[in-house]
Amino acid sequence: NTVTFYWNIEALVLLLNFCRGLKMTISYAHMLQFSTSFLNGKLSFTSDNKGRRTHVLPFASLERPDKNIVVDPKVDSLLDSVKWDDKGLAVAIAQNVDTGAILMQGFANREAVFTTLSSRKATFFSRSRSTLWTKGETSNNFINIHDVFLDCDRDSIIYLGKPDGPTCHTGAETCYYTSVFDSLKQQEIEGNRLALTSLYSLESTISQRKAELAEEENGKPSWTKRLLLNDKLLCSKIREEANELCQTLENNEDKSRTASEMADVLYHAMVLLAVKDVKVEDVLQVLRQRFFQSGIEEKKSRVSKKSEQD
Amino acid sequence: NTVTFYWNIEALVLLLNFCRGLKMTISYAHMLQFSTSFLNGKLSFTSDNKGRRTHVLPFASLERPDKNIVVDPKVDSLLDSVKWDDKGLAVAIAQNVDTGAILMQGFANREAVFTTLSSRKATFFSRSRSTLWTKGETSNNFINIHDVFLDCDRDSIIYLGKPDGPTCHTGAETCYYTSVFDSLKQQEIEGNRLALTSLYSLESTISQRKAELAEEENGKPSWTKRLLLNDKLLCSKIREEANELCQTLENNEDKSRTASEMADVLYHAMVLLAVKDVKVEDVLQVLRQRFFQSGIEEKKSRVSKKSEQD
Repeated sequence: NTVTFYWNIEALVLLLNFCRGLKMTISYAHMLQFSTSFLNGKLSFTSDNKGRRTHVLPFASLERPDKNIVVDPKVDSLLDSVKWDDKGLAVAIAQNVDTGAILMQGFANREAVFTTLSSRKATFFSRSRSTLWTKGETSNNFINIHDVFLDCDRDSIIYLGKPDGPTCHTGAETCYYTSVFDSLKQQEIEGNRLALTSLYSLESTISQRKAELAEEENGKPSWTKRLLLNDKLLCSKIREEANELCQTLENNEDKSRTASEMADVLYHAMVLLAVKDVKVEDVLQVLRQRFFQSGIEEKKSRVSKKSEQD
Repeated sequence: NTVTFYWNIEALVLLLNFCRGLKMTISYAHMLQFSTSFLNGKLSFTSDNKGRRTHVLPFASLERPDKNIVVDPKVDSLLDSVKWDDKGLAVAIAQNVDTGAILMQGFANREAVFTTLSSRKATFFSRSRSTLWTKGETSNNFINIHDVFLDCDRDSIIYLGKPDGPTCHTGAETCYYTSVFDSLKQQEIEGNRLALTSLYSLESTISQRKAELAEEENGKPSWTKRLLLNDKLLCSKIREEANELCQTLENNEDKSRTASEMADVLYHAMVLLAVKDVKVEDVLQVLRQRFFQSGIEEKKSRVSKKSEQD
């Protein structure tokens, strides 16, 4: 889904004039960044599944900023309310809006938060390079902002967003792939297990079982493997567990029975997702698009099912 | 489930001797903390649903530390590998192992991480008070550690754990309840919407609809409200959607159909959870307890269903 363009100096001038036409501020730093990008000689246009262009430029600071944010006087007072430290920074944590995975943690100054709000791409302040940087400006793996949260002390920020691809510069989905307890247990520090919460640990276990199906095995296969290999068994279990979940309501069974049957439904349905190569994240994205709009998106993108389910 | 004890100086001496018997190091700082606790005049013993005592002392530093961690030479080299900043600190983010919610963010020094690993309670370094503090030492709302992750740069830490109760000192579930976009939209900054990821936003919407059921309403009720009021309709939809999910496998439909049908199953099942007052977090806890053990827990707690589903 990525189209890459190569260009020459005329195209560059044209583009800069276009940006000026949009009344955008292009600082010297941005020019330098642009030059680097120019020297790299490519610019990627990425489109999503539906063919909509999502990124036109590889760095957010040159994107068209949100006019409402730029002119809103409340933005200033809100940024004033943040308790910046003695270096003018606050901790900024990027989190996946669908899975809850903590993608990365950096620091943000006032300008970085402003840029994040107006460009809707997670933007940080690099302490080592003393510059703003928008995650994705070189990798194209932007983190598209859905909301920004401040903590009770107003010195810590969550960038809640949807990543375009792996966040870590190593190519890992998130930067947190080194478990301390794993490291202590093993002779060598492997560092290859992501910090996953319960639902995604289960997803990972199921897909591991799926990967192991090809391997020679001694003894009885696990229940998950039997389900993965037998569509009829799997579907009969899903229908059975959904029925049992309903019965906890119909027969007025206690809450722990409901939680347990719902766990059964989830587990078996997740095995079906694995068979079909569908990620839990994709399902949550469908739910989000049906039910919610972030404060910054238009209502028009709601799908038709929405009206049935709000 | 909380029993509170009041005590006198004899009990204090007895307790200190008991701790010495456990070969625990009680520093002057800990003594001071203890004195404060003593002046408060109470000590809480909290038990979980199954009647097991979970907290014996209101601060982790006096708990019996994990011997394996204390004597393991690998812990030292692991702590050496963390890139502590010029103040000897790294960012520490506490995350709910089941929901993925970011609970709070603080800073940790070497001793704080060591205490977290050995006590299994999220422990930070307070920059304002220049002391270690274990979240929960005054509120009893500890964050029970399941795993600890380092990021690729080794200067940022995730404390993945299960909170005993609300983490924020305000009583909010997490410290992140101020949406910047909400604040900009409203005249007044309300600050009462938690940073929720998709699944929990949906849960929150459903429970809001449930709360609104009592209210007078004009016009047609939403689909969610109709489901909440009609068990028969709800159960028939859950069975229907589970069936349709299975059909995407049986009829070899495409992946987007599977994701969409799974979203339907999840949504309708979550309405049933709301009717039964069961939280998604409780369901995920059941799944976690069936499928996983953190590196620090004994295998024996696995429930009987486990053998069927690994």
